[in-house]
Amino acid sequence: MEVLITGGAGLLGARLARQLLERGTLADAEGRQASISKITLLDVVPAQGFNDRRIDLVTGDVADVATIERVLTPATESVFHLAAIVSGQAEAEFDLGMRINFDATRLILERARHNGNKPRLVFTSSVAVFGGDLPAQVPDAQVLMPQSSYGAQKAMGELLVTDYSRKGFIDGRALRMPTVCVRPGAPNKAASSFASGIIREPLNGIEAVCPVSPDTPMWLLSPRRAIDSLIHGHDIDAGAFGGSRALSLPGLATTVREMVAALERVAGADVVKRIRWQEDPAIIRIVNTWPGDFITARADAMGFQCDADFDSIVRAYIEDELGGKTAA
Amino acid sequence: MEVLITGGAGLLGARLARQLLERGTLADAEGRQASISKITLLDVVPAQGFNDRRIDLVTGDVADVATIERVLTPATESVFHLAAIVSGQAEAEFDLGMRINFDATRLILERARHNGNKPRLVFTSSVAVFGGDLPAQVPDAQVLMPQSSYGAQKAMGELLVTDYSRKGFIDGRALRMPTVCVRPGAPNKAASSFASGIIREPLNGIEAVCPVSPDTPMWLLSPRRAIDSLIHGHDIDAGAFGGSRALSLPGLATTVREMVAALERVAGADVVKRIRWQEDPAIIRIVNTWPGDFITARADAMGFQCDADFDSIVRAYIEDELGGKTAA
Repeated sequence: MEVLITGGAGLLGARLARQLLERGTLADAEGRQASISKITLLDVVPAQGFNDRRIDLVTGDVADVATIERVLTPATESVFHLAAIVSGQAEAEFDLGMRINFDATRLILERARHNGNKPRLVFTSSVAVFGGDLPAQVPDAQVLMPQSSYGAQKAMGELLVTDYSRKGFIDGRALRMPTVCVRPGAPNKAASSFASGIIREPLNGIEAVCPVSPDTPMWLLSPRRAIDSLIHGHDIDAGAFGGSRALSLPGLATTVREMVAALERVAGADVVKRIRWQEDPAIIRIVNTWPGDFITARADAMGFQCDADFDSIVRAYIEDELGGKTAA
Repeated sequence: MEVLITGGAGLLGARLARQLLERGTLADAEGRQASISKITLLDVVPAQGFNDRRIDLVTGDVADVATIERVLTPATESVFHLAAIVSGQAEAEFDLGMRINFDATRLILERARHNGNKPRLVFTSSVAVFGGDLPAQVPDAQVLMPQSSYGAQKAMGELLVTDYSRKGFIDGRALRMPTVCVRPGAPNKAASSFASGIIREPLNGIEAVCPVSPDTPMWLLSPRRAIDSLIHGHDIDAGAFGGSRALSLPGLATTVREMVAALERVAGADVVKRIRWQEDPAIIRIVNTWPGDFITARADAMGFQCDADFDSIVRAYIEDELGGKTAA
């Protein structure tokens, strides 16, 4: 079977591809594990570090019709649509956010529909679809009330994925990801970028700015668990989803203070001193509209798993990205 | 001030125009009642029966860029965007539904944004945005879970209206209309068309088919109250909406059986005999996903009003459309 990953050069896309190469299979249309013959990684820059003839690197624009026609063919049985403009940038550049977060999603769904082979399609949504007057723990039946353009665009994408699935055009799954943390690499324009930065930079011997208060609630998923969830979300039977293909994934409910305390336990007090606390009202405004805890009864029943605690998330980052060593 | 009504030849559009001509004013950007100098009625056919120089009839496609550029100018301070492909047709003709119910809405919002005058914009949404496992009474915080393409398209429109308003591009209001009943004129392709047909046709001496069971719950609003709600929704202060511009309007919770009983009380047993009961699975499938009762606490607090009982709705139809006389 052939697989398409959009955003294939990003953290999740590239890690997902490596995991799929290692597994070698994914569920096909009938739910049987089928051998993966090709994984196309589409992104605006080429994905790095792959040396496997099953990998096909395509550089291009996910919102461009010709590009999508090239990478998404009737032979494509699985799509992981991860490409997105992150929250902070989508708020600053409204038209760009609409084009990548919504129009590209619709283009991919339309192309998949017209291919006629009803591919499985995993779309990454976000807890930013929620906002307004939220309960302490957000239930599965919470109303969609995005307070950012990113959240609105993701919510519209969820609705499209569900409707295209209901109509039998595709077999879609829209997974609302908690904030993925600890992300390796450089900071990005996501309002949540600090959540990784305040752990990653100190572990690498660099000062990090924390733009929110220590009390800020966070809803987190490690990269390892995020990849497990994407694959599980792809492989489970569509019947488990019920009336909506959108699903809030389980995550770890914590606070910035608890995250920093875990960092200190794992890496020591000197590492934590590299965090500088300096509030940024623009980031606080967006982050404070996101819920910090959920009751994910649907996803729990479907077998999705999250991390046990933040200490293990910090340790996993040190293992996966720093070869087990920190700058402390 | 200048007003645009899309779907201006339809039941609600034409009645709204007549009511606005009579009132003579609407709230302007600052919330002050301003004199209406022009009402543009856009529809695929010309609206009938107007003889007022403030009325401008435009025949055209609501999803056509040049048409929208012509009817929605920087002088347009108010938009009532009522044009839609109804539920049954949007389910049968997916692409047409997306084009009119979603793309045209986005086009209008974009044009309004680029006009730069932040017009008030009323968008008619629908209770079809809800579905799945619903409580007996749907609260304001109910999750969006449309079970039809019409509902999905309306839900996406709501999200756009809220986000465009939050960004300050427009001052939007997305009002979820109960089923409007009794509609005059011919049946249409809405799955709910029967709700008016089983009252209207018998009162006009014609047989009507009821395609659903007498127990079917209905959530109704008379044309009179629907027009009042559109104008009230336009005129109230935006601050009343809170975190979402989408609002479930108050309606009358009843059943098909109670509707027919009211028809018999108002017009007599012979009229009711003109209803033939013949179930239609396609219509039942759509109608049964719609909720039949709501708790509309937000809209109640904002001063929206509904009908007291179905007897008064039948009497209002006889007064407004039949000159007070029935075929009984």
